[in-house]
Amino acid sequence: MPLWTIYHPVDAYTPADRQAMAAAITTLYPILPKFYVGVVFHAMTPDTLFIGGEPRDNFVRIAVDHIARQFSDDDRRGRWLTWANTTLQPFLGDRGFDWELHIDETPPNIWLIQGMRPPGPNSEDEKRWIEANRPLPLTGA
Amino acid sequence: MPLWTIYHPVDAYTPADRQAMAAAITTLYPILPKFYVGVVFHAMTPDTLFIGGEPRDNFVRIAVDHIARQFSDDDRRGRWLTWANTTLQPFLGDRGFDWELHIDETPPNIWLIQGMRPPGPNSEDEKRWIEANRPLPLTGA
Amino acid sequence: MPLWTIYHPVDAYTPADRQAMAAAITTLYPILPKFYVGVVFHAMTPDTLFIGGEPRDNFVRIAVDHIARQFSDDDRRGRWLTWANTTLQPFLGDRGFDWELHIDETPPNIWLIQGMRPPGPNSEDEKRWIEANRPLPLTGA
Repeated sequence: MPLWTIYHPVDAYTPADRQAMAAAITTLYPILPKFYVGVVFHAMTPDTLFIGGEPRDNFVRIAVDHIARQFSDDDRRGRWLTWANTTLQPFLGDRGFDWELHIDETPPNIWLIQGMRPPGPNSEDEKRWIEANRPLPLTGA
Repeated sequence: MPLWTIYHPVDAYTPADRQAMAAAITTLYPILPKFYVGVVFHAMTPDTLFIGGEPRDNFVRIAVDHIARQFSDDDRRGRWLTWANTTLQPFLGDRGFDWELHIDETPPNIWLIQGMRPPGPNSEDEKRWIEANRPLPLTGA
Repeated sequence: MPLWTIYHPVDAYTPADRQAMAAAITTLYPILPKFYVGVVFHAMTPDTLFIGGEPRDNFVRIAVDHIARQFSDDDRRGRWLTWANTTLQPFLGDRGFDWELHIDETPPNIWLIQGMRPPGPNSEDEKRWIEANRPLPLTGA
């Protein structure tokens, strides 16, 4: 959690841009272990990415799965989306791209990291994973 | 909404085929702005697409996220699936491909288009987006 | 159901490895027709796969959609995850990869296989599909 899948025009981003974008996305989840944040980039030629039936060479389409946490109410949801928008803007609108992003929330209890079911929200184990920035044996605390 | 992800054999479709297929998919959503309909194509070699554990060079696997609308009952769901099947047949069964398609419904309230949370179903703003076929500043109507 | 999407380092797996991994995944669903189990592999260069904002050349990220069945309770969920972990270990931890897997459960009633809505769980039609290992005309039984 989360997994970000980013479909972008072939020349949209350099490798350094992609790393900067992945790092920016990671900042959106300060309460989670950093290593929970996965980002994959798919470079799409215009004849493999269509919006409204038309090939597009300046569109970025982002699909996200949230696993570890769900938004508890629409105020938080709206504030987080505003924050995400501001954070991503340098990689999207500021570069002249049109874009769309949607997020799904998937069950936190069907999830494995290196064979372990990740610790519960705000548990002692989760705090240790955050501090170490890697999965550690679970104590159940 | 929606996002269609299509995994297909490498030589299954020409660029013109892909555009025709994306246009056909767009017709399945007449009540939505056309630009809501995203379609991405992934050309798969047989050693990267397996069905039942076997490599396949004649299988099309389609995964869809519906965001803006959810089916309200099984009658509508069934009729729409029949319509989708008829619409897609020229690109699937008629070409001798085996295929599978599944659709997920994701939360409409965790969704951004160019920084805006899209307008509600059948709102005045949504009608303006449909007519313009692009996102416009929201009036809240 | 299910659809497994596997993001892996470019040289992680040979074609034979991928087939063995897809076959191993298929064994995790003994109550389903084998042909329900789809697996797609995406080879990712380190500058297209980021974990915690860092490029990774030894990480396997797996995203799964379950369609035909949902876990009925956490005991079964936990046992199945343990089994999946054991089954996948030769392709993941045993090869020195870090990895993460998450599963979503999507609606079984928005799903088509070659134009048909697949038969219900444990129905006579499903048994015939299992035996034939291909979709057959539905009898409604």
